[in-house]
Amino acid sequence: MRTTTGWRATGPMTLRRTSLERRDLRPDDIAVQVDYCGVCHSDLHALHDHGQNPKAPLVPGHEFTGVVTGTGSEVTAFSVGDPVAVGNIVDSCGVCAMCEVGQENFCQSFPTLTYGGTDRQDGSITLGGYSREYVVRDTFAYPLPSNLDPASAAPLMCAGVTVWEPLRSLGVGPGSRVAVAGLGGLGHLAVKMAVALGATTTVISRTRDKRDDAHRLGAHDLIDSTDTQQTAAARDTFDVVIDTISAPHDLAPYLKMVAMDGTLSLVGYLGPVTVEAMDLLVGRKKLSSAGSGGRRATAEMLRFCADNGIGADIEVLPSSQVGTALDRLRRNDVRYRFVLDMSDLD
Amino acid sequence: MRTTTGWRATGPMTLRRTSLERRDLRPDDIAVQVDYCGVCHSDLHALHDHGQNPKAPLVPGHEFTGVVTGTGSEVTAFSVGDPVAVGNIVDSCGVCAMCEVGQENFCQSFPTLTYGGTDRQDGSITLGGYSREYVVRDTFAYPLPSNLDPASAAPLMCAGVTVWEPLRSLGVGPGSRVAVAGLGGLGHLAVKMAVALGATTTVISRTRDKRDDAHRLGAHDLIDSTDTQQTAAARDTFDVVIDTISAPHDLAPYLKMVAMDGTLSLVGYLGPVTVEAMDLLVGRKKLSSAGSGGRRATAEMLRFCADNGIGADIEVLPSSQVGTALDRLRRNDVRYRFVLDMSDLD
Repeated sequence: MRTTTGWRATGPMTLRRTSLERRDLRPDDIAVQVDYCGVCHSDLHALHDHGQNPKAPLVPGHEFTGVVTGTGSEVTAFSVGDPVAVGNIVDSCGVCAMCEVGQENFCQSFPTLTYGGTDRQDGSITLGGYSREYVVRDTFAYPLPSNLDPASAAPLMCAGVTVWEPLRSLGVGPGSRVAVAGLGGLGHLAVKMAVALGATTTVISRTRDKRDDAHRLGAHDLIDSTDTQQTAAARDTFDVVIDTISAPHDLAPYLKMVAMDGTLSLVGYLGPVTVEAMDLLVGRKKLSSAGSGGRRATAEMLRFCADNGIGADIEVLPSSQVGTALDRLRRNDVRYRFVLDMSDLD
Repeated sequence: MRTTTGWRATGPMTLRRTSLERRDLRPDDIAVQVDYCGVCHSDLHALHDHGQNPKAPLVPGHEFTGVVTGTGSEVTAFSVGDPVAVGNIVDSCGVCAMCEVGQENFCQSFPTLTYGGTDRQDGSITLGGYSREYVVRDTFAYPLPSNLDPASAAPLMCAGVTVWEPLRSLGVGPGSRVAVAGLGGLGHLAVKMAVALGATTTVISRTRDKRDDAHRLGAHDLIDSTDTQQTAAARDTFDVVIDTISAPHDLAPYLKMVAMDGTLSLVGYLGPVTVEAMDLLVGRKKLSSAGSGGRRATAEMLRFCADNGIGADIEVLPSSQVGTALDRLRRNDVRYRFVLDMSDLD
């Protein structure tokens, strides 16, 4: 086994610096020195659940970038020194109908998650990117384009591909009218991508003081979701509404803003949701949801971001301040994504 | 005013034969002798609501066929003696974005319903097709193709167009894999239409003894919804699932049978519905709903049914037996639609 250092959960909001084991490289594995790891809302949920009912060691982190430090005997796509990015999936069955169409995120025998997943070969529980080294199967690592900043690229690997998937599968392009509800980690990337795809892009937020930010990100307008006049005026106007709000909330106001034959796509809150069938019926609207992406979409998203100079707006903290990052994220006090600098683990 | 005879609600499940007034013909009106009127689930709901809280006179019926008996001074599309069909919408604003694209059923100032609606000119409450005469604006009456049987064509005007809309808007055609959940008034027409559109069509029913009926209607298979092995085997297999079940029910089993990028369309129960966002996310599935259709879809549906010899499977009762029809419909004791013969009102 290989030894590294990382941050392991000891309670619902506490992590302790500790040494971790990584597997010896299999023929198709690469070893990655993790330089930057984004702090995702999922990490908060995982820590909360672990605090309630600790089942296995938990090391969060599933959007990270770094450098290849070792390659297995059969690896040809990467060499030592290559910049690389890893997201929230590190393996899949590879043979089911979903894997065959490049949607490993929907693998019918469930994809192996980057942390808290079960390794398909040895049954061990995967430990995430809040650590200095990660070992990953080569097909689930992605070359990091050289013109992307490694720190601001890290959040692309989960937050980025999560909003990229619905924008692409719903055909957003020039002429599309897109609204992004909620301007946080997911939302600010959705705005950048929708704008770069050529869509007329509107932010829907209850935080009026985000108007300047919305414009800076490229959005053409901001709707104050607490202003019923503004929301009524926006009825039936957006082909796609990407709802990035992470807490349970009433979907009706957002569905009403969807245009004829348009779609409300949920990417923030992924629990049970209730809608009035009539709110779907009138205007032939659709409800969908998205989260992460397959290998094809992930690679495509990285290319698109490189071509369009898109990275996350981040606040970088040394990994020793992971507690601060989590606490501020819980209070939505970040514009727009924390990224941990892992070099303090050396 | 004109005088006719019809069935007016006197309680939640009782109707009384009574004389009714119809407006004098406006320049763009036609008078229709109602020969056959279908009995729709909506009629049960309307009667129930009226029994709880009677606000205005209620004469149900919104899918009927008959013959033109009079025309207003400016009517050119119809002549006395023409066979004609009327559905559940008899007017709309005509100028909003939805009306402009031929979706009068989504009129932003709400379409005028065939019964229980408010006339856009005189503010009167519309009285439905459980009567011998109806007066309707010419643009909301449809020539009845001569090769359609007037009795079995009546249910096409609500049940038929309601399932036609999602089949068409979701692109069902040769090669599509369609499932129809629930084999009743809506379901049996959905099966006939999906088959005629070239789709491989499966019925999902908890009533095993409908297998022969399903095959007779043209379906290729029947899944017993109470058999978990059968439903598990059908996971991710249908491009479109048309859910015609009229009572509240768990949508999860039906969503799981939807294929990648497919849609679950609700046409039976139109109240609040709850789904797990994850059941939409995995496989990038969509939830939608449909009910009735615009003028364009209605005319197109009638042509399609005429070309393909599609009518409803009906049980015709004299209108004096409307109470029996409603009672048996409530108990799902009909294969597959009651149609009232209005000639006993002469």
